[in-house]
Amino acid sequence: MSALLKQRIRYQPFLEKIKAAEDLVPYFKNGQYIGWSGFTGVGGPKAVPTALANHVEQNNLQGQLGFKLFVGASADVDIESRWADLNMLQQRAPHQVGRAIANSINDGRTAFFDKHLSMFPQDLTYGYYTLKKEGSKNLDISIIEATGIDKDGNIILGPSVGASPELVTYSDKVIIEVNTSLPSFEGLHDINMPVLPPNRVPYPAISPIDRFGTPNLPVDPSKVIAIVESTKLDTVGENTPSDAMSQAIAGHLIEFFKQEVAAGRMPENLHPLQSGIGNIANAVVEGLADSHFTNLDVWTEVLQDSFLEFFESGKLRSATATSVRLTPTGFKRFFNNWDEFSKKLILRSQVVSNHPELIRRLGVIAMNTPVEVDIYAHANSTNVNGSRMLHGIGGSGDFLRNSKLSVMHTPSSRPTKTDPYGISCIVPFASHVDQTEHDLDIIVTEQGLADLRGLSPKDRARVVIDKCAHPEYKPILTEYLDRAEFYAAKKKSLHEPHILRDAFKLHTNLEDKGTMRISSWE
Amino acid sequence: MSALLKQRIRYQPFLEKIKAAEDLVPYFKNGQYIGWSGFTGVGGPKAVPTALANHVEQNNLQGQLGFKLFVGASADVDIESRWADLNMLQQRAPHQVGRAIANSINDGRTAFFDKHLSMFPQDLTYGYYTLKKEGSKNLDISIIEATGIDKDGNIILGPSVGASPELVTYSDKVIIEVNTSLPSFEGLHDINMPVLPPNRVPYPAISPIDRFGTPNLPVDPSKVIAIVESTKLDTVGENTPSDAMSQAIAGHLIEFFKQEVAAGRMPENLHPLQSGIGNIANAVVEGLADSHFTNLDVWTEVLQDSFLEFFESGKLRSATATSVRLTPTGFKRFFNNWDEFSKKLILRSQVVSNHPELIRRLGVIAMNTPVEVDIYAHANSTNVNGSRMLHGIGGSGDFLRNSKLSVMHTPSSRPTKTDPYGISCIVPFASHVDQTEHDLDIIVTEQGLADLRGLSPKDRARVVIDKCAHPEYKPILTEYLDRAEFYAAKKKSLHEPHILRDAFKLHTNLEDKGTMRISSWE
Repeated sequence: MSALLKQRIRYQPFLEKIKAAEDLVPYFKNGQYIGWSGFTGVGGPKAVPTALANHVEQNNLQGQLGFKLFVGASADVDIESRWADLNMLQQRAPHQVGRAIANSINDGRTAFFDKHLSMFPQDLTYGYYTLKKEGSKNLDISIIEATGIDKDGNIILGPSVGASPELVTYSDKVIIEVNTSLPSFEGLHDINMPVLPPNRVPYPAISPIDRFGTPNLPVDPSKVIAIVESTKLDTVGENTPSDAMSQAIAGHLIEFFKQEVAAGRMPENLHPLQSGIGNIANAVVEGLADSHFTNLDVWTEVLQDSFLEFFESGKLRSATATSVRLTPTGFKRFFNNWDEFSKKLILRSQVVSNHPELIRRLGVIAMNTPVEVDIYAHANSTNVNGSRMLHGIGGSGDFLRNSKLSVMHTPSSRPTKTDPYGISCIVPFASHVDQTEHDLDIIVTEQGLADLRGLSPKDRARVVIDKCAHPEYKPILTEYLDRAEFYAAKKKSLHEPHILRDAFKLHTNLEDKGTMRISSWE
Repeated sequence: MSALLKQRIRYQPFLEKIKAAEDLVPYFKNGQYIGWSGFTGVGGPKAVPTALANHVEQNNLQGQLGFKLFVGASADVDIESRWADLNMLQQRAPHQVGRAIANSINDGRTAFFDKHLSMFPQDLTYGYYTLKKEGSKNLDISIIEATGIDKDGNIILGPSVGASPELVTYSDKVIIEVNTSLPSFEGLHDINMPVLPPNRVPYPAISPIDRFGTPNLPVDPSKVIAIVESTKLDTVGENTPSDAMSQAIAGHLIEFFKQEVAAGRMPENLHPLQSGIGNIANAVVEGLADSHFTNLDVWTEVLQDSFLEFFESGKLRSATATSVRLTPTGFKRFFNNWDEFSKKLILRSQVVSNHPELIRRLGVIAMNTPVEVDIYAHANSTNVNGSRMLHGIGGSGDFLRNSKLSVMHTPSSRPTKTDPYGISCIVPFASHVDQTEHDLDIIVTEQGLADLRGLSPKDRARVVIDKCAHPEYKPILTEYLDRAEFYAAKKKSLHEPHILRDAFKLHTNLEDKGTMRISSWE
């Protein structure tokens, strides 16, 4: 037992449960239901999953030792990739990142389903994911990463809360990995434990910085079969920097926010902001840090390095999320200013960070990037060409459905191997619909911003094409709409004009010819 | 002034504002933004809208006196039909019922948009529907039906609350129609007024029968330009009785509920029930009234005659909605047992009845009928063949997204003019998506019940086809899925296999040949 580990465990009975990761392999059986802590690739277990992968690899057990794996969102990309490559993922929900797991899903080895991240943990507590499990309807084993154990035996979590409250409550056995390479995150968390209907009560938050949970995660000590020391850090790659395209989008958005404030539809300090991951999200944060807006709040699911600069700009008052996903450089900055950041930052259960109750009450501004949006403002957040899973719905539906202002930002086009404008992100008919026309207020690309509030579908389509489509696709989309209106006029179905036999022509052209630039609608 | 009217108005200053409906016509100008009270065709104004329609008709003003009309949901079908036929509806949101208004939308005369009914009133308060309005961003005039005025000048509403709290707050002028043919509904309402972020607080309900609003609707008396007597009753047709198909669906569902209780996933008295309108909803209510379940609660948006029987069966403990839409016979029964019913029934603001906060907290069981569902469990609730608007999204998204258990019930097929099984309600790809695969737990037809919880899309599709599809369509759908899996295996996109060029083939066949029974997939 390392001195560091002993220091981190302030609850005596757990000191007797310390084991080596390799010694836990026999607890794991083929087909079990397993939970991992973690969210957006941080705060997940590493030692035991690695020991299991080593075991499978060394004993050629590929396909013979697999699991149904449940994680709050995406897991550590290196570790999950190993599991995927070793065919250890029979089933997986609700979100994932990494080429290996995507391959395992898309070539049919892993049965994956994605679910709104606010609903996933509660559906787990309802027993919806263990309907066919024999015996106990709990998960078999959950593995939770901690940065310490407090004197009462509660888990001091690390950089994410995610679904850990539900996982420890609804698992038969719990393994805790105490990561001694991480500093203690004590004080950052505000944790709500699951309560089932009809016993639920309101979440009392009326401001983004209200605390109404417990600082650490309670766990039934009789369930804890082992404490393991972990020393591996999360794999967090460098963030995608902003570029001219994403800066143009951010510029349109910030100009729009100014107009909304001027029109009296938003307060001077806007509303709590939700933003996703990626270069557009980073550009928006950079733009806000450079803007005249002050006293801003963030209510989101994951915080990245860009938020450190946002805090340092003095414009950001508070930030709350379920995960703080920092690069090694970011972590250093974060801990160098711990006293400052820890006062302004709260990590909550994902059920809370993504809860419709709070998103709607607080009037959040939601911003997300889709695969594609269609002219009537349905968005595809998950499946390329309708079928190939990227990452999953994530929290996009939680935020876009319940926000005061829902924004989809996307480049107007993307390149393919043979055509620099081979993919239009504005299409006639989204090849998979995750967000409906009833959920989106604003679509913005580097070309411009379409304000869709209060518009009928036909009017919406003209505005989306006019403001957002890439110039290469404007004539193609306009011709589709003209033809659809002509066709629908005959059929008396002019509410949302479509010609269904042509609706996916851009997509099939992409599959056949590597570009959505069709030669003709005939 | 009728003695009856005077009796109903307990606030003296309003007695001086009594006017004839005809005298109010000059207040209405072409292009104005108008609000009507009412929800699901009951509780809306009748005298003034009729006077306006008469005015247009008698003076041949068709197309010259039109409005942008906002109602909580659907308006009185007779009156709205007249407005539609007289081209008085330039714009309309968020929901409507009746052939005339549907025609006006689908032939392009009325710019309609549908919106989740929980969100419509709040987006109105945000100013999202008056972005292009000159001057004041309020609606110009709202007309509210009342069954009385209390001594403080508050409006005693009638059979619906709907969006009236938001309409009176965000209109420059208010006209109150006191309906003296209706009995007073005083005591039935629990009204919450709109509060904008960042000032919102929790809705404190922890049980379906909690009251946390005011009994009557406050209105700024200086806005009230007239009180009008109305004597016309709402047009409510007879309810669609249950039949063998809907009883079969109800049978599958009630059997499923029993299994859920037995498995410990639901309490003995289930969870609060939401159900829509139509013969399937009626059959489910009848089935529950005949079942062994007791102490049931209903948390829904509209109550129909079937709930009277449900109450009388002794099985229903309480019911809450934003509207009680009763036939003339139903009304009589209701008022004959007023003392009993009024203790167990609460009418709330539609923002509250349909609020994600409460639906999720209470763990509601949501049941709705779609136009069609697809094999992967996306549902079309609004647009036939992707384009032709029926009624609008209504509250289906509010309830299905946030419920503990979300159920779509539908006949497996419907007849066309030439084919008794011309339409399959299970299709390869929904021609319009209002509910996503991330939102539905159960699909049930008269053929059987598909439990989709925790299944990947590919597994879901097999279960949906196997349990729910009509026998005529099982081979057609199975062949699509087989072919799509073969195609997707080559493309490494096996998460949700589709062949986009074939995805709408059933729909285009229906348009061309009057049936979805295609001769072949080749």
